[in-house]
Formats: sequence, structure tokens, C-alpha cells
Amino acid sequence: MRAEGFGMEVVARDGLARVTRISTPHGVIPTPIFMPVATFGAVRAIGFEELAAAGAEILLSNTYHLHERPGEETVQALGGLHGFTGWHGPWLTDSGGFQIYSLTPLVKVTQEGVRFSSHLDGTKIFLRPEDVVDIQLSLGTDIMMVLDYFLPFPSSKARMKEAVKMTTLWARRSKERFLEKPARQQLWGISQGSVFWELRRQSIEDLLAIGFDGYALGGLGIGEPKAELMGTLEKADSLVPRDKPRYLMGMGYIEDILEAVDRGIDLFDCVLPTRNARNGTLFSSRGRIIIKNRKYARDKRPIDEGCACYTCRHFSRAYLRHLYEREEISSAVLNTIHNLHFYLDIFRKIRQSIALNSYREFKRQLLNQLKESEP
Amino acid sequence: MRAEGFGMEVVARDGLARVTRISTPHGVIPTPIFMPVATFGAVRAIGFEELAAAGAEILLSNTYHLHERPGEETVQALGGLHGFTGWHGPWLTDSGGFQIYSLTPLVKVTQEGVRFSSHLDGTKIFLRPEDVVDIQLSLGTDIMMVLDYFLPFPSSKARMKEAVKMTTLWARRSKERFLEKPARQQLWGISQGSVFWELRRQSIEDLLAIGFDGYALGGLGIGEPKAELMGTLEKADSLVPRDKPRYLMGMGYIEDILEAVDRGIDLFDCVLPTRNARNGTLFSSRGRIIIKNRKYARDKRPIDEGCACYTCRHFSRAYLRHLYEREEISSAVLNTIHNLHFYLDIFRKIRQSIALNSYREFKRQLLNQLKESEP
Repeated sequence: MRAEGFGMEVVARDGLARVTRISTPHGVIPTPIFMPVATFGAVRAIGFEELAAAGAEILLSNTYHLHERPGEETVQALGGLHGFTGWHGPWLTDSGGFQIYSLTPLVKVTQEGVRFSSHLDGTKIFLRPEDVVDIQLSLGTDIMMVLDYFLPFPSSKARMKEAVKMTTLWARRSKERFLEKPARQQLWGISQGSVFWELRRQSIEDLLAIGFDGYALGGLGIGEPKAELMGTLEKADSLVPRDKPRYLMGMGYIEDILEAVDRGIDLFDCVLPTRNARNGTLFSSRGRIIIKNRKYARDKRPIDEGCACYTCRHFSRAYLRHLYEREEISSAVLNTIHNLHFYLDIFRKIRQSIALNSYREFKRQLLNQLKESEP
Repeated sequence: MRAEGFGMEVVARDGLARVTRISTPHGVIPTPIFMPVATFGAVRAIGFEELAAAGAEILLSNTYHLHERPGEETVQALGGLHGFTGWHGPWLTDSGGFQIYSLTPLVKVTQEGVRFSSHLDGTKIFLRPEDVVDIQLSLGTDIMMVLDYFLPFPSSKARMKEAVKMTTLWARRSKERFLEKPARQQLWGISQGSVFWELRRQSIEDLLAIGFDGYALGGLGIGEPKAELMGTLEKADSLVPRDKPRYLMGMGYIEDILEAVDRGIDLFDCVLPTRNARNGTLFSSRGRIIIKNRKYARDKRPIDEGCACYTCRHFSRAYLRHLYEREEISSAVLNTIHNLHFYLDIFRKIRQSIALNSYREFKRQLLNQLKESEP
């Protein structure tokens, strides 16, 4: 029953960049794709209808956060993530490894699992890799991520080696647990090892030996030199079979995304467009707009004259500046609609240019445009 | 040019309650009507499309607040309130009298006008009744309110007498200024006098002698006994000509609205439904729902099973509780959509029952329903 008909199909290639279609229990998604972040089952400041209108195809939620509130039993009782939230397209849930290590005090990692205090109320929580699989099975997410062992950058090679070992051990136990329970969901592995290629390679090879439906690169985009990051992606490309999805976790700058796509990456997620929207930083095809800037006080133009989003079709920079200054909730909503539309539109163009074998040219042009000063 | 074709037509009566159609430069509105509050040109946590879907026909903004930010020159330069905000239906702007006296420190009232410090940055501001007319002409609002002199409850009869005198003086100067400037907008008067009938009557008669397109009752709903308030409305009904709109300012409880409609009131505004929405207090036809209550944690029902709003058609109490607990912006948005829909729906039913000559029966049934305990 597992994964039948839920594979990946490569439909176009341009260098290492590729367009694929990944089948999930709740629909087929095209890649390269950006997954808006819905940590608690809702993308901040935007509803599902607006997300669909912006072109969102899959949302990302968080196993650890949902385990804390409202709890996977509650989500399951209400029809899983799809029934509970009302987003009936595909869901991917991150395992929460990153959140556990970055948000919570007093984390203690043993072979058995992770012991830590809830960042919400201090409750002691113990999560084994098996628990993380069970929680995601209860949530009913389409793409489940294994629990990984995340280290900050920089970490010593010796510590990173231990983290990779633990990540492999946990990945194996996750897979075993997954196999015990018939499910139509997919389980994806996460490699660690930072930009130590020897360790990253080991981590990826370990995951390949276990066998997953998709392969994520974790622990990147947290301060390591860009050249080393990109080198890692290139080498990883030749390691992971071409018929498997590759997901670069948490990477949000358009510039990095464009380079990563050029190195064979398929999936991305980041809070950048939504968080920036709430902070009044808006993307445009000609650079970023800090909407609180006085110069927009009487600017009748939309954020981006070439943008077809609801916000750009209806509102001026002057009005958006006014809403931001007055701390109106509509400011967060309208800005989020625009920023997500902008991101998802770039991904549409990425896919199109790959299909047309003109990805490099598209990338070059967009990188130049983004370097322009504020409009 | 003034007010031609912008009168009021009474289309149905049931006792003192009536259904009317008021023509404004930006459309005809039916009454009894509820005006959602858009203090700074945006209703908190809801967009114009959702407002239209909920059945909003006219929005209320605030002269004093818009004068402070972004300033009437800016609004005018961007096409007036309609062009600036994108709400192209009718706008009513309150003069800001209430806000000046309740929000700002060190208010000094002279015959000439009001001197006070901005509640935003302490800037000294001096507003004469003429300025308030000029600002609203610049804003391009459809229904302009005169500057009135608002006193808290309780105030002595002697002080209230002075307030009524000042209100009349200012109303006359407002009208004179208005007549100097050709405009298609309407100017409405505001009576004061609290529940001292002798003073309220004087105030209304003074306004009638000056002549306005509509008559508001100000300074009510701030603590005076309900019986005295309702008595005042009844007596005011026989004073104001039947072919003029009557607006009871700032009154928001459904129970009071139902009684006021029964005493000939046509227009209402209040922040209650929107503010309550953000605080997680939701209206239903069977009483209020405090959404954070634990008992809703797994409640699959919509807020109100009989409600046709977007929120009730898509989301469970359990999910709405979760969003509220997690302080998601979507919580404010979805709750506001529901509460405003609930209010506007009651007004639709008010108009319908008056047209069917069954208003009293409708009022009795709804009052009974609202007394039920939380569902």
C-alpha cells in the first residue's frame, strides 16, 4: 500500500535544474516549489483562499509545535491536519528537530531521543524518533520528516560527526517504525554534516541505504560560507538518485534559491516572505521596499507595477504605508498576500524557464533586477 | 448643486420603526443600518471584499484621526477617502468630538474651538468647527458630521446646558462654512443634552432651525439608565421630521439596537463586533461564545450553525480556538468576518421584519434567543 503511485516524475531538465511532479495523497505538486510556513496549521496573516489564489500548492507545518498545541490527538479527532485546518492540499510537516534545538532550554540528547522543556510552559517533553513518526501519522501529513540532530554553525567536525551518527541511527529507527504502520504517507530523510563534505556524504549515503521517499539537506543556510554551501549542493546532486525529490530546508533568500535550483534542488521553505511582510519589508521585481519610508506617503503606485496580486491590484504604497504606520492588522494581511504572491510567482517562472531551457538566462536577469535600488 | 437627489425615502413603517433608503454621492444605503468602524480608513482585521461579502453598505471613519494621520491633504491627493482606501461605497466621518474629549490630554474648549494635544505625539492642535467641515470636504466623505461638544456621564445640568449652547453655536458655524463651499456631500447635525429632556429638546430644535441633512443623537450610551435613554429616543422621534435620517451614535449592543429601532432610529455604529472579535468573543444566535474556553477544544461545530459567513462555512470552533490561543492573525480576521456578518445579518432581518410588519415579533424572539446560555 505504501507509496504506490506516489513517486516523482521528472518532466523537464536544464543543466542540473529540473521540473518535476511529486504525487502525494492530497494532490500532485510541481517543483521547484516554495512551501509557505504554517507552523501551527495557519500561515500567519493569510487565509487558505488567498494562499490558493497566490498559487500555493503545499504548506509546511511543524510536528513539534502541533504536538505541544493543540496535540496530535486533537488534530486527529478533528480529521487530521486537512480536516482540522481546512487546507485540503498537501501538507509537509517538519520533524521539529530545528525548533527543539533552537527554541527550547535545557535540551538533552541521548541515543534514545531528545529530552527538553516546552518553550511554551516548561513542561518536560521526551521525544524519540519513533514518537515523531507516530505524531506525524496521527496528524495525517502527506510528507513526514524524520527527527534529525541539528547543530549550530560553526560546530567542530568531531561534534558534527556525532550528530551525523545520531541522525543516521534515528533515521533508521524512524523508517522501521514507519514500516510497522500501513500508511499512504511518505517519509523523507534529513542529512546533516554542515559543509564538511566527508560527513555530509556519509549522512546522505546512510539515508540512501535506509531508503526514503525524498531527501532533505538540513543544517544549512545558518552562516556557512555561500561557496561551501553551493559546493555541497553540487556534490549532493550527484549522490542522490535523479528520480528522488531534494529539499533544502529553511533557505529563503531568492538569490540563494536561484543558485540552489541550478544545483538540482526541488523544494524550499522559509518564513522570510511572511515575516518580512509583517515587518513592512516588501519584495518587488526591482528591489525591496521598506513601506514605512516617508517617501511612499503619497506614492500612488502599487508595490510592484508588474504584480497581479490582490494587494497590487487594489492598493497604493501610500495606503499600505498608512496601514503599516497605524499598525492595522490589514497591513500584515495585504503585505503577506503580496510577498507570498511574489515568491510563488518567481517559482512559476523558474519552472517555466527550465521547461524552456532558458533557466540560466532567467536567473541572470532576475539576479540583476534584484540588485537594483529601491524603486 | 447641494443635496439634490440625495434625500431619504421611507419605504416601510412598523410602529415607529421604519425602513428607508438614503441616497449619497456614492450609493444608496438602506436603513436601519449598521456602519462598521474604520477609524483610520480600514476596519480592523477585515478587508473591503470581506466587508462587502458580509453585507456592509457604508463605513464610518474619523475626521480627527485622519486629520492627524495621514492628514487630509494626503488623503485628498490620493483621491479622497474612496480613492485612498479603495472602499468606493459611501463613507460617513464622525467629527472626532468624542475622540478629542476621551483620548486626548489637556483639552481646552473655547467658543472659538477646541485646543488639545495629539494623543499620538503630543503636538498641539486647534480645531474650529469650520476646520472640521473643511477637513471632511477634503476627505470627500459622503456624510459629514459637525463638531459637537461632548460631556461624560454624569455631568451636571448646568454644564450640560453650556455644552448644548456651544454645540448649537458650532453647528451654526459648521453649516455656514458648508454653505460657502459647493459640495455634493451631506452635513448632519449632532444633538447633545444627555437624558435631560429639556436640554436635548433644545439641542434638537436648535439643529432643526439651522437645518441639516440628518440628525444624530450624541453623548448617549455612556452609562445613563436605559429607561431614560429609551424615553429620550421616543421623545426625539416626535421632534425630528419623519423624512430625515436619525443616527444614534456609538450604540452597539444588539439589545439596545433593537429597542432603538423600535423608537425610530435609522443608523448605528460601534466597535463592539470588531473589538469583541479580536478579543475572542463571538456572537451567535444562541448567545455569546468565549472561544478560548476549553470546552471548544474538540468542538467540530461552526460558531453558529445557522450562519452563512465564510468563517462558519469553513472552520470549526476547535480550529478557531487553536488560532486564538496561538495568537494567529487569522484568528482576528476569521472572528471579525463572523461577528460583522452576524451584526449585518440582524440588520437585514430587522429591515425585512419591518417591511413585513412583524418587527415586534422579530424583536421579541431575538431578545429571547440572545438570553440563552452559551451554546
